[in-house]
Amino acid sequence: MSSFSDRLAEAVRRKGPLCVGLDPRWDMLPRDFRETTLISRNDQLRRCAQLTTTFCRETLQLVEPFAGVVKVQAAFFELLGPQGAIALSQVIQTARELGFVVILDAKRGDIASTATAYADAAFGGCSIDGDIFPIWNADALTINPYLGRDAVEPFLAAAKTTKRGVFVLVRTSNAGSGLFQDLVCNGQPLYRHVAAAVANWNATTIGTCGLGDVGAVVGATHPRELAELRAALPNVWFLVPGYGAQGGTAADVKAAYRHDGLGAIVNSSRGVVFPFNRDDPEWKAKIVAAARKAAEELKA
Amino acid sequence: MSSFSDRLAEAVRRKGPLCVGLDPRWDMLPRDFRETTLISRNDQLRRCAQLTTTFCRETLQLVEPFAGVVKVQAAFFELLGPQGAIALSQVIQTARELGFVVILDAKRGDIASTATAYADAAFGGCSIDGDIFPIWNADALTINPYLGRDAVEPFLAAAKTTKRGVFVLVRTSNAGSGLFQDLVCNGQPLYRHVAAAVANWNATTIGTCGLGDVGAVVGATHPRELAELRAALPNVWFLVPGYGAQGGTAADVKAAYRHDGLGAIVNSSRGVVFPFNRDDPEWKAKIVAAARKAAEELKA
Repeated sequence: MSSFSDRLAEAVRRKGPLCVGLDPRWDMLPRDFRETTLISRNDQLRRCAQLTTTFCRETLQLVEPFAGVVKVQAAFFELLGPQGAIALSQVIQTARELGFVVILDAKRGDIASTATAYADAAFGGCSIDGDIFPIWNADALTINPYLGRDAVEPFLAAAKTTKRGVFVLVRTSNAGSGLFQDLVCNGQPLYRHVAAAVANWNATTIGTCGLGDVGAVVGATHPRELAELRAALPNVWFLVPGYGAQGGTAADVKAAYRHDGLGAIVNSSRGVVFPFNRDDPEWKAKIVAAARKAAEELKA
Repeated sequence: MSSFSDRLAEAVRRKGPLCVGLDPRWDMLPRDFRETTLISRNDQLRRCAQLTTTFCRETLQLVEPFAGVVKVQAAFFELLGPQGAIALSQVIQTARELGFVVILDAKRGDIASTATAYADAAFGGCSIDGDIFPIWNADALTINPYLGRDAVEPFLAAAKTTKRGVFVLVRTSNAGSGLFQDLVCNGQPLYRHVAAAVANWNATTIGTCGLGDVGAVVGATHPRELAELRAALPNVWFLVPGYGAQGGTAADVKAAYRHDGLGAIVNSSRGVVFPFNRDDPEWKAKIVAAARKAAEELKA
């Protein structure tokens, strides 16, 4: 298996920079998924989780011609409890079988052996008396840097061993992100300090493509910061949320790419996966059209 | 049901400030849990998760005379996959039945409706076509502030509706926590800015006990900062990790309490739950002795 950064580069070269975000909110699923026959309360979450898996699998097949990367949002699976955990592992497995590079968006952050437990769940699996049991088996995981050095290094170590990657939150796309990320410390905003740490962690992981396995999350809603960070971190992959439903445009994200066209994957979740009213029988055609449009906009 | 802060105050008045941390690492369980008969690979994770539940339930009964609060570490359950999610919900349910205030230590952080999904999983449950299905059903959740205002407010809203609480990471106990938390911004370290935001969020949630539902995580390994934050945040509950195995002493955490004896719960995980060699048949007595010793040290 080649390095994470090289697998990501290969996916972007084949399909372009679109990353499709799977945020399967139950109440947004098409009506034919939601009209279940009456079942017992005990079976309700199981059935919802199964239908969530089915919807995600169908969506993955629909968007496969237009995107080489998917980002799976852990929160909506967690909300379905243990049955949602089964769905999460099934959806990631299907995505890998279809050839997607899979980013698990769980924004994990903890220290030492606890961080290693999260990293093993995401990448290598659970070790029981010498046997290894895969859990999520994602290609990459989003992580939160607030806890500091020893909250990031266990994820880097696990990623290195298993040829996976991480994306560290640097400058997020939400309206309230500035509360702490924009605080100026020693002449630079906090997110630039995090970016500098990312550059440092990434430096020893550069693959054949010229980029490394330690990426940064940088929102499409901050085009100026995208350009500034692209210049400061020439070898770092950016995962760019905020395109589409959150208001970022294809023009806004242009600054995220390197001259060779690599360097950024641009995520669209609702814009591609839920471009329909839930009563719309043409939901599949709507997803295909939305994925095609996003892929073409981002390639242009 | 009274407010989270008042339930926590009641637990501390009855049992003292000890919070027992359940970090059930499979390879540290007593030998009688680990000598399973040969079972198929398919059943292995299920069996480990069941034994993890059993170990946690026995531990909860052993420590119940000495602690009114438990902190359950999500990572070690996540590492057991969907079966671990079943174990997590079972352990939390048992803890509540035994009268513990239960903190789910998952350090979640995301924005908008995604944050609401995590909060609903932790507190109110999953809503399916008008029915509510409890998922983790914890009394409180640890959250990470890096994403900013709109990453915290959905948790606060869900906590308010369900009379639950949150603990925001402020100054963590790990050796590398200073990398970002100690950066000086506008004359104050970053963690003081986070602390000020916590004070602000907490201000509208003050219960009868004089403290509120929005707490702060402040490590026992930083006694000076504990004292400084206690003075700055008189109405904020502190969850203090780092006591015991991580090196913090009862003297180190003294500054975390208010004059009325409330204001802080002090977590011990390995020190109380794994004070034995895994071959030791006397592991139950060792847990009881460790819990008693920690409870007495912290009360003194």
